[in-house]
Order: sequence, then C-alpha cells, then structure tokens
Amino acid sequence: MIKAGLVGVTGYTGMELARLLSLHPEMELDCVTSRADAGKLVEDIYPFLRGFKSGKVVISFPETRELAERCSVVFLAVPHGSAMEMAGPLLDSSVKVVDLSADFRLRSTAVYEEWYGLKHNQAKALSKAVYGLPELYAPEIREAELVANPGCYPTAGILGLYPALKNSLIETEDIVIDAKSGATGAGRKASVSTLFCEVQDTFKPYGLPRHRHTPEIEQELSAIAGQKMTVSFNPHLLPVNRGILATIYTKPRCGQAAETIHKIYAETYARHRFVRVLPPGCLPELRNVRGTMFCDIALVPDERTGRLIILSVIDNLCRGASGQAVANANLMHGLPVETGLEFAPLAV
Amino acid sequence: MIKAGLVGVTGYTGMELARLLSLHPEMELDCVTSRADAGKLVEDIYPFLRGFKSGKVVISFPETRELAERCSVVFLAVPHGSAMEMAGPLLDSSVKVVDLSADFRLRSTAVYEEWYGLKHNQAKALSKAVYGLPELYAPEIREAELVANPGCYPTAGILGLYPALKNSLIETEDIVIDAKSGATGAGRKASVSTLFCEVQDTFKPYGLPRHRHTPEIEQELSAIAGQKMTVSFNPHLLPVNRGILATIYTKPRCGQAAETIHKIYAETYARHRFVRVLPPGCLPELRNVRGTMFCDIALVPDERTGRLIILSVIDNLCRGASGQAVANANLMHGLPVETGLEFAPLAV
Amino acid sequence: MIKAGLVGVTGYTGMELARLLSLHPEMELDCVTSRADAGKLVEDIYPFLRGFKSGKVVISFPETRELAERCSVVFLAVPHGSAMEMAGPLLDSSVKVVDLSADFRLRSTAVYEEWYGLKHNQAKALSKAVYGLPELYAPEIREAELVANPGCYPTAGILGLYPALKNSLIETEDIVIDAKSGATGAGRKASVSTLFCEVQDTFKPYGLPRHRHTPEIEQELSAIAGQKMTVSFNPHLLPVNRGILATIYTKPRCGQAAETIHKIYAETYARHRFVRVLPPGCLPELRNVRGTMFCDIALVPDERTGRLIILSVIDNLCRGASGQAVANANLMHGLPVETGLEFAPLAV
Amino acid sequence: MIKAGLVGVTGYTGMELARLLSLHPEMELDCVTSRADAGKLVEDIYPFLRGFKSGKVVISFPETRELAERCSVVFLAVPHGSAMEMAGPLLDSSVKVVDLSADFRLRSTAVYEEWYGLKHNQAKALSKAVYGLPELYAPEIREAELVANPGCYPTAGILGLYPALKNSLIETEDIVIDAKSGATGAGRKASVSTLFCEVQDTFKPYGLPRHRHTPEIEQELSAIAGQKMTVSFNPHLLPVNRGILATIYTKPRCGQAAETIHKIYAETYARHRFVRVLPPGCLPELRNVRGTMFCDIALVPDERTGRLIILSVIDNLCRGASGQAVANANLMHGLPVETGLEFAPLAV
Repeated sequence: MIKAGLVGVTGYTGMELARLLSLHPEMELDCVTSRADAGKLVEDIYPFLRGFKSGKVVISFPETRELAERCSVVFLAVPHGSAMEMAGPLLDSSVKVVDLSADFRLRSTAVYEEWYGLKHNQAKALSKAVYGLPELYAPEIREAELVANPGCYPTAGILGLYPALKNSLIETEDIVIDAKSGATGAGRKASVSTLFCEVQDTFKPYGLPRHRHTPEIEQELSAIAGQKMTVSFNPHLLPVNRGILATIYTKPRCGQAAETIHKIYAETYARHRFVRVLPPGCLPELRNVRGTMFCDIALVPDERTGRLIILSVIDNLCRGASGQAVANANLMHGLPVETGLEFAPLAV
Repeated sequence: MIKAGLVGVTGYTGMELARLLSLHPEMELDCVTSRADAGKLVEDIYPFLRGFKSGKVVISFPETRELAERCSVVFLAVPHGSAMEMAGPLLDSSVKVVDLSADFRLRSTAVYEEWYGLKHNQAKALSKAVYGLPELYAPEIREAELVANPGCYPTAGILGLYPALKNSLIETEDIVIDAKSGATGAGRKASVSTLFCEVQDTFKPYGLPRHRHTPEIEQELSAIAGQKMTVSFNPHLLPVNRGILATIYTKPRCGQAAETIHKIYAETYARHRFVRVLPPGCLPELRNVRGTMFCDIALVPDERTGRLIILSVIDNLCRGASGQAVANANLMHGLPVETGLEFAPLAV
Repeated sequence: MIKAGLVGVTGYTGMELARLLSLHPEMELDCVTSRADAGKLVEDIYPFLRGFKSGKVVISFPETRELAERCSVVFLAVPHGSAMEMAGPLLDSSVKVVDLSADFRLRSTAVYEEWYGLKHNQAKALSKAVYGLPELYAPEIREAELVANPGCYPTAGILGLYPALKNSLIETEDIVIDAKSGATGAGRKASVSTLFCEVQDTFKPYGLPRHRHTPEIEQELSAIAGQKMTVSFNPHLLPVNRGILATIYTKPRCGQAAETIHKIYAETYARHRFVRVLPPGCLPELRNVRGTMFCDIALVPDERTGRLIILSVIDNLCRGASGQAVANANLMHGLPVETGLEFAPLAV
Repeated sequence: MIKAGLVGVTGYTGMELARLLSLHPEMELDCVTSRADAGKLVEDIYPFLRGFKSGKVVISFPETRELAERCSVVFLAVPHGSAMEMAGPLLDSSVKVVDLSADFRLRSTAVYEEWYGLKHNQAKALSKAVYGLPELYAPEIREAELVANPGCYPTAGILGLYPALKNSLIETEDIVIDAKSGATGAGRKASVSTLFCEVQDTFKPYGLPRHRHTPEIEQELSAIAGQKMTVSFNPHLLPVNRGILATIYTKPRCGQAAETIHKIYAETYARHRFVRVLPPGCLPELRNVRGTMFCDIALVPDERTGRLIILSVIDNLCRGASGQAVANANLMHGLPVETGLEFAPLAV
C-alpha cells in the first residue's frame, strides 16, 4: 500500500480525501495532521468513518520530517500561503506532493501576488509544479514531484472549453463563464455568512467580477488556445453541498457546424473515462456527478443568437479537489488514473 | 371592498393570490374556482389559511356569468390557452381581467403561435391588453380592461435592463441573460421531474435555448430600446421555492462611466417603492425579496472585460406573478399600486 | 408611535424583531444596539430592510441610559447572562422590558443555576417577571414591567398540553415530547456545526436528554396541572430555517373520549386568534405557520396503543421568540395582542 | 458474474439497485424491466449511469419467462400486489427472488389483508419467504428461494431494539418509535404532495397512527421478545432525500445499568460490519450513513425520567431497501454479505 499523508484534515477537501482514501485499493492514509484536532482519531471528528481503518488514524501536528519519513505522497489541504510553507521542505525530502491550494497553480508569481495579495517565496518549487488536470497533462503528472491540483471552477471551465479552443472551433473573445457552486466550495471555517440559515432557500452571486480563479482559468485557456485570453468569470453560491455547473457562452467560428463540434468533443474525450460528453438534446445536472470524478459536458447550439452554449458539470469536492488529487497521486505512482475512484454517482 | 374572482386556485399563482388577498385592506376574494377542487373550502386545500376569511370561501366550478356578476376583477391563474377562452366572455361582461398566463403578452399572434404552438383566437381582446409592468406602464394599466400580467423571467430581465436601454447606456447586441429560478416557477402539477428528490440538492439548466419567455423579453426590450433586439436567455432550476436571479451580461456604450449608469438607475427608480437599486459593491440575493414585490438591482462594472453585469432579483411568485397581478388590479381600481403589498421580506 | 429599543440586533431573534417592527402600525424601532455592528445602519447588515424606515436606524453601542430615555419598551435579544445585566438598570429607569433570553423564565434561581451553569444575581427583577405566554397570562402581562419571553420549545409544548392538563384529560406521568426544530433556533453565531453543509440534507438529535428548555417546560406544566411534573423532552435539528414541530405522546385519563378532548381544545382556544385547533384527521406542518404567530395543534387518538398524540407546530422565530415578544409588548402598552402581527403564512 | 433481473426500474428502489449493481464485482444487471420505459436504455432514464455497463442495458417489458431464463436472481421493485403476481411464477421457474415490496413480510395473510387492504393469494410462496434482515437471519437467507426484504422503518426499528429485547433489558410495554424519513421513502410517483415546493423547508407527520409498517415491526419485535408486542410507531417526512432516524423511547428493566446495556449492544453487533454502536455521548445523524448499509445506533440513558432512548439511523434507500436486497442476494449466492456494498458514507 502506498502511504499517504494528509495535511489539513479539518476542511472539506481534507474530509473528502479521508473518504476517498478509506477504500482505495492501493493507497492509504498513514499520517493525518491538523493543528486544531491533534490527538484525536479521524473518526472522532468524522464519525461517518467509524469502522474504516482510516477512522483509527491518530491526528498529529503537521511535522514535515515525520510526513516525509512515513509517506510516499503528501496531500496539502491547507489554505494558500500555508501550503507554500510546507511544500518546499517536503520536496527537499523527496516526498511527492499534491497541493490542493492555489499556491502552485499560477506560473507567474507576479500574477499570484496580484490576485492573492501574498508574496510567493517558493519560486524553485513552482518551477517544478505540474498543473494537475489529468485529461490534459497525464504524461507530465506521471513524472511530477509536485502537482498543483486545479481549482474547482477552473476544472469545470477548462474541461468544458478545451476541445473547442484546442481545435479553434470558437472565437477566443467575449467568452462568459457564468458558474454556480455548492457551499462546500466556501470551506469549513466558522463563519456567519455560510451558516445554514444564510444559504438555505436562497441564491446569490459573489466575488464579482474578480474571483481569484479568474487568472488560473485564463492562464490555462491561453495555453490551450495558443494566445492570450481574457474571460468574464462570475460565480454564484447554490444552496447545495456539492457541485459546480458552468454555463459558458461562446461564439462558434464561422462555418463550424454544431455536429462537427459535438463530434470533436466526443472524440477528444473518448478515451477519458471521467469526461462524459452528453448526446445532443441532453442537459447535465449536478446530481448526475455527485461524489464522483465525472465531468458531464453538453453543447447547446443557438442559431437565433449565433452562440454555442457549453455546459460543464462537476462535483467540486471530488473532481474539483480531492478526487482529482487522488487521481494525480495515482498517476505519480504509476497507477491507472481511475484507481480507487470508480464510483457510481449518488444521484438522489 | 373590491370583490375579486380567482380562476384556478390550485396552482402556485392561485395559492399566492389567496395569500395576498387574505389581508388586502381594499380587495377580497369573493369567487374562487377550480375544476378539481370545486365544493371544498379554500382552507381545505390551503390549511395555512385557516382563520382567514378567504379560507372560508367555497371553491366553485369556473362559470363566466357568475364571476362577472359577483366580481369587479377576475384573476386568471390558469394555463395559457385556457385563459384565452375565459378572457373574451369576461371582458364582454365588463369585468376587469388580469391574466397571469402568457395569452395576452405577445402583441403578435404569429409570434405567440410560433412559441406556444397554439392558435390565438382572441385578437380583439389582445388588442385591448396592456402589459402589466407597473413601473413602465402604470398610466395605461389604470385605464385597462385587460392586463397581461408579465412573465416572471421577463419581469426580472426588463426591470434590470430598462434604464440602460431607455437611456442608450449599453449596446443592444450580445446581451446574455443567465437566469436562475426557484421551483414554484415550474408549477404545481403532479410530475416526476419536479418531485422533491429530483430537485433537492441539485441544479440544472432547462429549456435551452428556446424558453417561451424569450419573445416576451425581446418584445419589451425592443420597445424600450426603439429597435429590434435579440437576446440570449437561458434559465436554470434552483432548489429553492421562490425567487429569480438574472445575471445579465451587457457592454456599456463607449464613454459611459459606471457612476453615471448607477446614477441613472437610481433616478429612474427613485419614485418606485418596489425597485431597490443597490449601492455599488452590494450584491443582491433571493432571500432579500422573499414574499414581496421588491426587485433588487445591482450594477457590476468589469473593466478587465469591458462589461457591465446587471443583477436583477425578484420573488417569482409574488413580484413575478401574483403580487404584480394584485398591483395591476390596484391600479385598475384607482388604488395606489402598493396597496396590500407592503411586506417586509422573510429573509430567513 | 411607541418607541422600541432592540438590544442585540445581530442574532436571528434581533433580525426577526427588525422585520416585525418595520411595518407595525403602532410601534417602531428607535434604538438598535450591537457591540459588533455599532455605527452601521440596520440596512447595512440586513439589506432586506432597504426601503423601510427601520433600515435607516443607526446601530449604537448598548447604553442603558440612552435606551431608557428614548424608549418605552426594550427588547433584550442577547444571550442569557447578558440579558440579566441589562434588565435591572432598565427596570430601574422605568422602561418596560421584554427579555427574549432564559434569564427570567425560571422562578427558582437554584434551578436556573443548575441548568444554565450561571449565578443569578437579579432576584428582585425576577420576582417581578411575568411569563409571557399570552394565551395563559394576558392579564398579568398587561400589568408587567418585565416579561420573560418563553423559549421556543416551551411555547410549542405548553400550548399543546395546556387544555389537556388544565382539564385533567391526560395522565401527568410518562409524557414524551419529541421535538424537531429549524436551524434558526441554533442562533446566528459563527460555528462549524451549523454551517450549511453540516445541516443541509441531514437530521440529528441534540442536547439529549438534558436540553435547557426542560425545566422551563416542567415548571409551566406543573403550574397548569397543579402538581409537580417531569417530562422527557428531546429535540432534533431539522434542515429548515424556521419552525418547531412537537410530537407529544400522552395517555388519556380513563374514560376521556377523543371527541370530548377535541371539543375542550377547540373551546379553550376559541377566542385566541393565534391558536388553530385542527379538525380531526388533519395533521399540521411547519410551513402552514411560517412567518406568523400561529400555533397549529392536532390531536391524534390511537386506540391500539391507548395513547393520545398531540402535535403542536409553531414558527420558532416568530411565535417562539420575536413575534411573541411583540405580542407581549402590545399587551404591555394596552394594544390588542394581534397588533402588527396579522400575517398570512408564507406556505411556499 | 451472477445475472440479476430488476423488475420495476423506475422507482427509487429500482434506481438505487441500478446504482449498486453498476459496480458490484460479482453480480450484474442483465434484465431490467419497466412497463412505462420499455425500449429505452437504462442511461436514458438515469443519465448518471452513462459510462457504466448497466447504463447500456435495454429496458424491457416484464416477462416472467425471460427473467427466469436469463437471471439467477430477480429483484422485485414494484408496488405490493404487483410483486405478489410476479413472485409465484418466478419461484416455479427456480429463480431466486428478493421482493422489496411488503407482500411477503407478514407471516399472517389476515394481518396483511387488514393493513394493506388487498387479498393475499400466494400463501405457498409466503410459506417459503424468509425475512431478509441479515444480522438476524443470515443462515436462513442463505438457504432461501424467496426473501422478503424488510421495510425501511422496520429495519431501523428492529436493529435498534434487537439486543435490548433479545436480552430482556427493557420493558416490552409502552415503547414509542418516533421516526423521521427522507422523501425517497415516499416513492417516485408523480404527485402534488411530494413536489419539491411541498416538501422543501417544511416538516410534517403522516400516516398517524396506523402506518403500514406497524404490523411488520410488531411481528418481528414479538418474535425477538418471545411475546406479543404492541408499539406506537409514528413517522414524519423530512426535507432530505435519504435517511431514517428513529427515536425510540423505552424503559430499562429494573436493575439494568446503562453500561451493561451498551456492552451487550456492542457485543451483539461486534461481528456485523454494517451496524455501528456509537460510544456513549455520541449521537448519530443521517449523513453519517448516506449511501451505505450502515445502521448507527446510540443509547441515551435518562435517569431523570427513568428512560432509555435508543437512536437508530439508516439510509432508507440503501440499507432500508436496495442495499439490503443486494446483501440478501449476496447471501443467497454464497457470497459474503458485504460484497459490493463497501462504501464510505458521503457525509457532505
């Protein structure tokens, strides 16, 4: 069994990692850390894990040395800034690192500093980081020491736009990504604004028009399109636990037929088990991917307005964070990307 | 007291009308009809109205003659098609009619027939119909015999765009309305697709890209802008009971400063109690209008992308249907538009 | 207009008081305090109140002297302990006080100290306090200087059991109150355990078997029955915002027919507009009282098991806290108890 | 691979069986039937199963002969009455049957006919039926041709009470089971009363005091206790998709210490992976078992009232229906009961 470390078990990404590694056939939680809950068992804070081996792991203070000695791979599920501090020493100890924070996603430290308001002091580590979107970068991930696990919104947006931009099927101007996310995306910090009664039975935009995932989306789309791209990305908070639905407004390039575009999408993702291109006329919804790695994509041509609407749906916690982190760790250890991630969605 | 008739009490718009007229100081439910529930009391089907006078009204079969004799105004809360059948005879009997269906909203019977797939056979009544958006058409509504109560999405979209289009502040091309609605908008018909377990904890688009409210929105925006407009309107279903949030993507005309636009919005709606233009930096949410006539509007300029995002929020059942119907009936009887509609939102 | 003070606007009871007093015809918010939000407008923290006079009130630090000078009545919507500190000085300044905390509900300071773990140092004020359940104590409330506003669970439980115990219709032994409450009951404090994702789509018991409302329920039931009573009271947390449903398991005294019991309930509450005794066969539900003062009660006789199940439903925030506080303030000022509280429930 | 048939795929139990058998390592869906959806693929009605082999199964009309020829086991996920019609011919064809309806749960046809209002015409099949609660009847299930899959409420109630009654730890009189269930329990039929807007943000009792699961619970508890038992069983509808929480009020027999009772529970279920007896002080909640076979049980002694409150939580769809059906089919084929059912709960 591959020994895995989890730094920061108390957030929702840590919680989801604990779930996913509880039944992984080749990887297991060995070292779990949290400043707040050190000394407790994992099952004390997550009683749903009673009866699993992972539930009996004792939570410890985060110690780089111990993590490096005991683990083959360490998942950093801590806020940005904190992740940066941990990554360098871990890499120096030759342990593989999958960072779920934003610290190693942006190639430019200047852009990072502008959007995150924080000095980036790990340029060396950053230079080694691979952007962990398996459908695009599996070969690089297999060789990586440090994987920057993509943000949830970028995962939905990039997978939704990749075949279209890669194949120059749409204009690169004027793209609007209107995204809606479940509340796990807001984290597991004590806060009035994410209390049940503040989120239940309501809906609202937030972070407009400068959400921090914007430069990450633009960086990756630009790389795909081979030209600098600017997009309008605008998120909203849904009264659901899990899931992101991105409604992406694009304009097909002149002469691109809807059937052709659909065919190219289907071919692009044909060998990727976790991306499902829906047949024409079929629209995606959050629940169809709940608890899984699936990204469901639909293409809606609109002749009246000359647009192509792309709908991309993921589970923000699994595909958009911890599941993708496990997929990356699988690749880094030479395992098939799907190992331990073959779930049927819990649609109701 | 003004005597009101309600045709079709069993749907959500009928239910909301029953709520609103239970405490209206100048108007009361006198005649309530439903084919399915004739013979019962209103409180038998709506036990929340026990203890109210309206709860004791006996539901009857819909009879034009009786409605005309007993009522000063009749609300038609039945599906399109059925409303058309009722409206003509009622108008002939000199009773005022507020139609909550789509039957008299579109000026062109051809457009109606194209989008609703139904023959329009009430051209005479249609020629008298006034579009019942009080902020735009109060003078005409005061004189009207027949008011076509606006659709819920059009109400949110038109109020959100009105000052910008009226004053040529934005381009008329390329407008995208990404709208999200609560499930009361789907009606109160027995149906698997709107069962609790099919809507709860999920989210999905529907009706793309040809929802029936599209021509209504385009008709009204075109009238405001003074030129034919095409918009991309795309709705989604939220796991909440009430509320619509429309995220409207526009482009300011060259030289229009964000401050100017905000000022014009504030001035336009200054005398309209039920439209609240939020201060810059403040974003709207569904719950802030729950159960009320308020339309909350925010303007988000985005310099990076050269856009102006307009957010418009209403309660789809109250402002987007039954409350607006009562407001129209108020105007038709010479009452202040706000009569009986002064609620504080039930924000939690 | 009666000038009202509100100490502690940031909790859910404060928020609900702000809603209720926004349209009260005889009482208005004059002085609103909060340590955390002093200096802001009410509408800054509660944007749903934009457009209301109450939204424009400036929040101040809590100052007894200012409250006493400006207000005729002060609502204490602060935690127990804090309320005790405020009440004495306010009463000394001859302002009427409605305390929404638990500080003046229990007649015995020893019982208070046992269950709340806090020294009670306001014996004098306590001796003046009237238990503010209008259906039982309206005459005393009209004369009171200090009203101890009942807890939410006690309100549901006592109203449900009152006619049965008062008239010796049921055994006083072995009563079980299985109660379920919406999450507003858990307060508006930043806390992980009441985050949206921790409450949504789940359900759990809490506080078993020693919830703090137990001695309050037992005190009042004992007073009604004229003998010391012990009950088993067990609450659960519902994934809804508002509402309490108490399922109360009792045993009818020998010879008491279901019809008789129902008749006595109906008669007891006949003159009380806000208690609705449902007809036999009709079961209550939370939504039928949402946003209102109604308490809906149903009686379910079960011959198989020799039980009488009493179901009692209220809105925990309105009837179970702030609405009842306004009702008490109404009575204290010689107004009809219903003044400003005549709402139709927002059933969907 | 064991070939399984599924009669009635369109309900929630059918949907859950389709999910569970999509990844079962030893059993697969071979024959799926539905009168309404014959001719479609499973993935056409359940798009969450795209990409799974089970999604590609063509739905057919239910034909006993075909089912018998192709399958080793048939799951009947149709309403009571219909199940009875299918079971006899299938058994005659030597196919194993797991019936998820109520048709073979009650030993007495008279009791069945009284509570279900239907003639029971399969006495021969009934005589062979084994009650499929694996913790109690695994040896019998292994030999069974026909397993009557327990109801959801009985599963929660019986597992919660089994050790206490088996070991005479509690009185057999005066037991109250106050149960709360998610809305999947109400089925997937088009119906106004289970529409999203009728269930969301509310809560209500139903079926009081004669829910059809009562005789099943009493039959099984009587068998365990060795004496005829009557219980008060009262269900409520929660605004959640999955899960049952039963709050069971009992009285410990004289002299039974809480520690002893807890120890006996722990020992009773020590070898049963899917029952988790929580440590003292720990309370269960629905989400901790979501999507799984776990039954979480807590014991809350209450000295003040002389009671023992037993809390029992399951996922009504998985443990309370389809998962338990798969467990039974596992046993009937000589597999370990847990095969294909080792899920970690999706707690958020």
